[in-house]
Amino acid sequence: MTDTPPLRFSDMTPGRVFEAGPLTIDAEAIKAFARQYDPQPFHTDEAAADATFFKGLAASGWHTAALSMKLFVEAVRVQGGLVGAGVDDLRWPQPVRPGDTLRLVCEVIDARPMMSSAGRGLVRVRSTMFNQRDEIVQRMTPTIVVPID
Amino acid sequence: MTDTPPLRFSDMTPGRVFEAGPLTIDAEAIKAFARQYDPQPFHTDEAAADATFFKGLAASGWHTAALSMKLFVEAVRVQGGLVGAGVDDLRWPQPVRPGDTLRLVCEVIDARPMMSSAGRGLVRVRSTMFNQRDEIVQRMTPTIVVPID
Repeated sequence: MTDTPPLRFSDMTPGRVFEAGPLTIDAEAIKAFARQYDPQPFHTDEAAADATFFKGLAASGWHTAALSMKLFVEAVRVQGGLVGAGVDDLRWPQPVRPGDTLRLVCEVIDARPMMSSAGRGLVRVRSTMFNQRDEIVQRMTPTIVVPID
Repeated sequence: MTDTPPLRFSDMTPGRVFEAGPLTIDAEAIKAFARQYDPQPFHTDEAAADATFFKGLAASGWHTAALSMKLFVEAVRVQGGLVGAGVDDLRWPQPVRPGDTLRLVCEVIDARPMMSSAGRGLVRVRSTMFNQRDEIVQRMTPTIVVPID
């Protein structure tokens, strides 16, 4: 938290970069999320995970996405809150493993007034999450709704 | 759970439809997820939510996505597990509200062998989640990795 005023549309200039993290994830958190939302052996059971596609415990992609939202909310403090209009090109090039330390880098790539709603703009962001080896564990292109000044 | 054998590539013919649900979500679940992953007033506090974009408590889009994964795992039992290669066009046309009852409809739209990995195929699915009024609360196009028979 900072005491700078929240961001508005005019602040979201293409090329502007926001960063957040680090955030470390452990096996218990991976398994707890998966038991509730993605109950598959490679997300819930270390021993069973060894014999799967992932060759060991890996976080659900939706857990990874939820953690990136936590970092996004920390990194980008928008007036009225972060409201997502949608997400394109969500990919998980590397699995997130127990003990991984994650950081998020978000770059504004486009900003334009919203045709269907006066006083609001749509801001497109390139969101990339890295692990402690600077490997990309997730990328996506969310579009958020931002009030126009 | 059924005792039918798990699905393989040859089972994933374009046009095939899988369904799961119903699943009802309450305010406590919405707030618990949001406190952990998307701590914004419209997801964590009924009173504060009234004055926001959402005009009332709404589930985080990532909570909605996680719930759709829960239903996806129930609906589509793939050999070796449901492994996501990525997701396109993720949208939340209507917010999910406390008390909403959700169901998922998934349709196979494309299936092709994976160039980079012999013995595996990529299956593209149109995933649509509805509430109890048959309004679409989420749509996306995930691609999953499925073993070739």
